[in-house]
Amino acid sequence: MRSIQLTAFGPDHLDPVDLPAPRPGPGEVLVRMEAASLNFRDQMLVNGDLYRGVQLPIVPVSDGAGTVLEVGEAVARFKPGDRVTTFYKSRWIAGSMRPEWEGMEIGGPFDGAMRELACFDQYSLTRAPTHLSSLQAATLPIAALTAWQALEQAHVTTGQTVLLLGTGGVSLFALQFARLRGARVIVLSSSDGKLERAKALGAHVGINYAKHPQWGPLVREATGGIGVDAVVETVGGGSLAQSLEAVRMHGFIGLVGFVGGSDANLPLTRAILKRVQLQGISVASLEAHERMVTAIEACGMEPVIDRIFGFGQLREAFAYLAAGQHFGKVAIDFRA
Amino acid sequence: MRSIQLTAFGPDHLDPVDLPAPRPGPGEVLVRMEAASLNFRDQMLVNGDLYRGVQLPIVPVSDGAGTVLEVGEAVARFKPGDRVTTFYKSRWIAGSMRPEWEGMEIGGPFDGAMRELACFDQYSLTRAPTHLSSLQAATLPIAALTAWQALEQAHVTTGQTVLLLGTGGVSLFALQFARLRGARVIVLSSSDGKLERAKALGAHVGINYAKHPQWGPLVREATGGIGVDAVVETVGGGSLAQSLEAVRMHGFIGLVGFVGGSDANLPLTRAILKRVQLQGISVASLEAHERMVTAIEACGMEPVIDRIFGFGQLREAFAYLAAGQHFGKVAIDFRA
Amino acid sequence: MRSIQLTAFGPDHLDPVDLPAPRPGPGEVLVRMEAASLNFRDQMLVNGDLYRGVQLPIVPVSDGAGTVLEVGEAVARFKPGDRVTTFYKSRWIAGSMRPEWEGMEIGGPFDGAMRELACFDQYSLTRAPTHLSSLQAATLPIAALTAWQALEQAHVTTGQTVLLLGTGGVSLFALQFARLRGARVIVLSSSDGKLERAKALGAHVGINYAKHPQWGPLVREATGGIGVDAVVETVGGGSLAQSLEAVRMHGFIGLVGFVGGSDANLPLTRAILKRVQLQGISVASLEAHERMVTAIEACGMEPVIDRIFGFGQLREAFAYLAAGQHFGKVAIDFRA
Amino acid sequence: MRSIQLTAFGPDHLDPVDLPAPRPGPGEVLVRMEAASLNFRDQMLVNGDLYRGVQLPIVPVSDGAGTVLEVGEAVARFKPGDRVTTFYKSRWIAGSMRPEWEGMEIGGPFDGAMRELACFDQYSLTRAPTHLSSLQAATLPIAALTAWQALEQAHVTTGQTVLLLGTGGVSLFALQFARLRGARVIVLSSSDGKLERAKALGAHVGINYAKHPQWGPLVREATGGIGVDAVVETVGGGSLAQSLEAVRMHGFIGLVGFVGGSDANLPLTRAILKRVQLQGISVASLEAHERMVTAIEACGMEPVIDRIFGFGQLREAFAYLAAGQHFGKVAIDFRA
Repeated sequence: MRSIQLTAFGPDHLDPVDLPAPRPGPGEVLVRMEAASLNFRDQMLVNGDLYRGVQLPIVPVSDGAGTVLEVGEAVARFKPGDRVTTFYKSRWIAGSMRPEWEGMEIGGPFDGAMRELACFDQYSLTRAPTHLSSLQAATLPIAALTAWQALEQAHVTTGQTVLLLGTGGVSLFALQFARLRGARVIVLSSSDGKLERAKALGAHVGINYAKHPQWGPLVREATGGIGVDAVVETVGGGSLAQSLEAVRMHGFIGLVGFVGGSDANLPLTRAILKRVQLQGISVASLEAHERMVTAIEACGMEPVIDRIFGFGQLREAFAYLAAGQHFGKVAIDFRA
Repeated sequence: MRSIQLTAFGPDHLDPVDLPAPRPGPGEVLVRMEAASLNFRDQMLVNGDLYRGVQLPIVPVSDGAGTVLEVGEAVARFKPGDRVTTFYKSRWIAGSMRPEWEGMEIGGPFDGAMRELACFDQYSLTRAPTHLSSLQAATLPIAALTAWQALEQAHVTTGQTVLLLGTGGVSLFALQFARLRGARVIVLSSSDGKLERAKALGAHVGINYAKHPQWGPLVREATGGIGVDAVVETVGGGSLAQSLEAVRMHGFIGLVGFVGGSDANLPLTRAILKRVQLQGISVASLEAHERMVTAIEACGMEPVIDRIFGFGQLREAFAYLAAGQHFGKVAIDFRA
Repeated sequence: MRSIQLTAFGPDHLDPVDLPAPRPGPGEVLVRMEAASLNFRDQMLVNGDLYRGVQLPIVPVSDGAGTVLEVGEAVARFKPGDRVTTFYKSRWIAGSMRPEWEGMEIGGPFDGAMRELACFDQYSLTRAPTHLSSLQAATLPIAALTAWQALEQAHVTTGQTVLLLGTGGVSLFALQFARLRGARVIVLSSSDGKLERAKALGAHVGINYAKHPQWGPLVREATGGIGVDAVVETVGGGSLAQSLEAVRMHGFIGLVGFVGGSDANLPLTRAILKRVQLQGISVASLEAHERMVTAIEACGMEPVIDRIFGFGQLREAFAYLAAGQHFGKVAIDFRA
Repeated sequence: MRSIQLTAFGPDHLDPVDLPAPRPGPGEVLVRMEAASLNFRDQMLVNGDLYRGVQLPIVPVSDGAGTVLEVGEAVARFKPGDRVTTFYKSRWIAGSMRPEWEGMEIGGPFDGAMRELACFDQYSLTRAPTHLSSLQAATLPIAALTAWQALEQAHVTTGQTVLLLGTGGVSLFALQFARLRGARVIVLSSSDGKLERAKALGAHVGINYAKHPQWGPLVREATGGIGVDAVVETVGGGSLAQSLEAVRMHGFIGLVGFVGGSDANLPLTRAILKRVQLQGISVASLEAHERMVTAIEACGMEPVIDRIFGFGQLREAFAYLAAGQHFGKVAIDFRA
């Protein structure tokens, strides 16, 4: 069976490998994989920037989707023919993350999506939204769930305003989910073209942060001086101080990313006087994932896919992701 | 100045009276009233079914809207020209209802909306949504806020399903707010025509409870056997047992009305095994009201008005309300 | 191995049976059972009043405690020598109860505690508090967890007042947990002697409901006219209306039992105007159970055991429970 | 009437002044002030480090207590003879802080406690706990309420562990409140003597941060490797990174102070992977204050007063506070 393995760190070591076809054990599900999508996390793994127990070689990429071929003993959640996506945090069913569930992520340390056939524990999969293709569904596990969880923890609802710091996968899912919840959206980008595309997706205000590095006060003005209800903070670094300027009294900042640097400066006086909640968010539980799937179905939402690569083009796909010019998700079609 | 007073209990005693024009004291606001709307509560007052310190004569009707003419000393919230609605619970600014704020409702024991000029404490008013006429805004204070609060306490959000027990004012506002939050809606009515109108407003499923008095299991079927996430229980009496059938495990039933009887039978075993939350709801605070106004504006929502009566037709309006055939709000246009 | 089986419904059919010793499969834990305790639910099972898929013969009794003898493959949670109790809801790890976890209760339909050796899934056990004997620990799974969950959902904390409707297992655990949280406690009983014993355990006020069947207003008076913050409603039936009298504005009523009847009368007007939360509670998740164990240990709490029966005295123990004169838990010592 | 005014910035300008006796207007209450207590905030005001609209001269000090002498018109909350404390945030009754309530703090910009007679709005006062002297009660408004709010927002309860960064006023109140809630407490100090005194008040673990500047991992070890449930972060600056080490997965860090510097370094990766909530806290509403008073009374709690100065010793009191050697509150007895 066709597969891609990372045999040493670095994108040059993403090698096609023929692996034996797996068989589902008790509680396991055999899936014919049909698509995958890339996240920042996959890039860190490939570059060797993740160390939590990863052993090489490994089948990379956390997000995948496909069709159930066969189920092992004691599997109640799925049957052959069901369309599914991977569930990244593998065993985190609900409630708080438990120590014994840590380090059990699909796509490292567990093998990931880049293989034609794969066996997963039945709780490491969720059903795909019925109206989405496998390619579309494969974009959901990490990016959409992170965005969903940020809005859920912020209790974003009708009449509120959400600030998004860019137009990557998490931000665009947050844009779509915020609109479904009846919220207004302000988007930042360094590209006027991307701001126009974000508006076409429903954003109300776009601000070019390259032209306005002190965008915090601008965002506040765009809310009549009150500040936004919630920020999905995908950047970190120096951005956090601007986010604290932009957010309202008693507002919410979901800490979800650190592409701008893991060491952030937190102006305490402002955080205290505004009584802001800064909430660390790292994907979510299966229960939240299932609520998200129900919502996507109920609203007929479709993910924004920037570009599709073939199974054999994984290196090119990573290079494209690293260039940072994408608007939405970078996906891999196994049938292309 | 033109006014209507209830001089004795019973709709026959709604009499036109000429009252002296009021002047705003410190913290007060003088409003030119332009519209009102009727609620079940007004009917109870007129019929003498409310006893909490009401002294006659009284200017009836809790919900009203108009334009600020003048403000008294120490008024920071409003200025002349602002368009406002009454805030029914008068002093309940935020948090929990306080004992000293009880029994301070506009429309009894305090004078209500049916007068050309009225002075209110600045915290007994909220701004009207800018895109609504006074007639439209006058429908909001009790019915819309009750619906808003029910959905807010239920944390209704994208992908959830809400059950509404009828097509009166509260139910139709709940329908609109649920749709704005991205939720699905199931509506009950005894009229197929009203069910069609509810669907035209965005409801997904309509069930005729006259044809299906055991509607609980039908509702559950309409959700794939899971049950609805939230019920806005405007009926009470025998309806509650059906609502408990219809709601999902860990679901929410907002207790907001009792047109079907104040004594309800609660099947405890079912409430316990399903871990249902039954939440008593009686309008909400000014803070919630203001969030609602912001949401209505942000989404451009317009209330459903069934019929408009003139200032001099208050008796006819009450008779129409009592007949129970309305779909949406019964409003009074002071300029008609 | 020694065991008791229910071979037909009725306490006369609790028969001693010699069963083969079990062996732990993958994910399973072999426990030497040392103690058990009885709940209302066990009595319903024995009497044939529970129907959810129970097949006879069955080893009865949900609550048990013992020592781990051996663990199967892939068991990370326990090792030989660990002291454990059963976890009644068997698979409900955290979050919401899932359909696939329903009907998997220990003590029916799954075999229960009345056997010398038993194998359980590792997630159907929790560690016992280190300072408690197996006999003491065996009282926790259903009654203590129900009380814990009621106080947790009510957010009971320092300075609040909790009302308890009796002196059975759940009520006495609620008394102890409420005191640990810094709350005041009002207890009802039909026995002045039991009220004295409850006060010795920390209750502040005792009211004899046999002498004062309209105890609602008395309870409110005992809180300075405000009402209690939370009620642990173990009775149901006609008691609920009194509970609604006793609770404060915005208060909490945890619906946990129905010994007074499953059909309760709910006075809607009062529930609505007081904005009361009535919350159905049926034990809780493993995550909550573990929080409870941590709390019991941290505070050195000891359960109240009314009477101890030997392994061979199960019928007598059930007869004693049915008589309803106990104060605290009825326990079974396997070594007696 | 005797008073102290700040006539220019700097402690040398705290001058005794004779002011005319005030009279209560509508909604106001005349109080004979009997005691005060000092906070970091008062020191900032005196030093000129607070700029929000403060005009000199001003009567300084936010926290005070005394006895009601007379009430103005429309005052329902108090009557002569009632013992009261100031409520710092003056108009913040409940819910979210409103823009129109900002900048209305007692002790700057409004006149503070250092005067024999003072008139306050009835909502700028709360009743004092009945078992406390005015001197004791005067320590509550800022420090105790900040500690209370931190524990309330963290939902600290039985079995949890709270970390306190020092032995100043806020930390010692947090220690006492945490103990009343049944929580365990770990305290940091640079003084072994103070750690002993904290243990005498109920702390379970004391760590000398001067000897162990990398105290984060030590705290985690003291919780069996899990981490504390909540941190009351009174320090800021470089301390925050250690707090993030010390806190558990899904834990809570209440941001309440910045004596160690307002610019804190926030290690984002850790905050995200641990899913920590960092919550800015700046005192709380009147509603929270009243809940705290009820709790203090119910538990008979007494504040820890380090040293008492006389009315005429305000400069000495500030110098003592600035030296930072206190353990608990620095109070002013107007009768000394």
